[in-house]
Amino acid sequence: MVLACPLAVIGVVHTDRVSPENTPVQAALNRAESGTIVIHPPYDEGLAGLEGFDYAWLLSWLHDPAGPGVPPPMKQVPFLLRPQQREVGIFATRGPRRVNPIGLSLIELQEISGPEIRFAGVDLIDGTPVIDLKPYVSRFDRPEAEPRCGWFDEITFTSGATPADLGRN
Amino acid sequence: MVLACPLAVIGVVHTDRVSPENTPVQAALNRAESGTIVIHPPYDEGLAGLEGFDYAWLLSWLHDPAGPGVPPPMKQVPFLLRPQQREVGIFATRGPRRVNPIGLSLIELQEISGPEIRFAGVDLIDGTPVIDLKPYVSRFDRPEAEPRCGWFDEITFTSGATPADLGRN
Repeated sequence: MVLACPLAVIGVVHTDRVSPENTPVQAALNRAESGTIVIHPPYDEGLAGLEGFDYAWLLSWLHDPAGPGVPPPMKQVPFLLRPQQREVGIFATRGPRRVNPIGLSLIELQEISGPEIRFAGVDLIDGTPVIDLKPYVSRFDRPEAEPRCGWFDEITFTSGATPADLGRN
Repeated sequence: MVLACPLAVIGVVHTDRVSPENTPVQAALNRAESGTIVIHPPYDEGLAGLEGFDYAWLLSWLHDPAGPGVPPPMKQVPFLLRPQQREVGIFATRGPRRVNPIGLSLIELQEISGPEIRFAGVDLIDGTPVIDLKPYVSRFDRPEAEPRCGWFDEITFTSGATPADLGRN
């Protein structure tokens, strides 16, 4: 089943990254790098109050390297498991080849000036469309105890790692 | 600008809630209540490995009480600010009336059995379409320090609160 729900682009992400293979895999692993978001009018009026938050969820429409209309495999080797060449189910990964390629990045808000947001934590290529922004709320978004995180608990990885650093697909 | 990107429905949420006004506002505030997700074939194969995680992000297509095609106001009174009748920008709220009504719920995974997931933390009405599932990964999803959370830091709220509990719109 397909939803008849065209998504409005509320803004665009600007970063120094142009190739997905050379873009760090997660915002939290690349806080040293900043980017900007420009929110298109009239949506920029919806930013009022966001300046009181340190973090936000950036929902974006991800670039699909396979091109539109090519369905993703239900089991994939995530970037961080490339060294092991280990496959897991698509819903146990955070990778960009998804049924609906919606990205979820936890960005650190640095400055909001008019329609422009400067943020730390780049994991998106330049030009990525923004489809939503939501404030990070500790009481909603933080599990109570220390949760199990599946295969992520079994591996080590370093900040700033890109897919290209992690080996061939 | 509108993206020509029809969303595939990967599954459906089943809960005991039928009216948005009587549904708790956030999953984390209603862990005492469980629901189920049924993932449609062939997407159920993508669940492999998710059983190793305690939490997941449930991305859903929210019911819009105003109906499709009615643009949301850029400033709104969030459910939790109804007592104060205070407006904030739409991107500083977690409410369901969004430009793109994509819900982000942090669910606690209780049991995965074939295509069916039992979870704790109900903030969705029965029949809500699922558009993505992503594992919760502490190293990606948890800010390093204690972040400022804007207007949420200024108010008190209780578990299980529904919009109807919080006053008239």
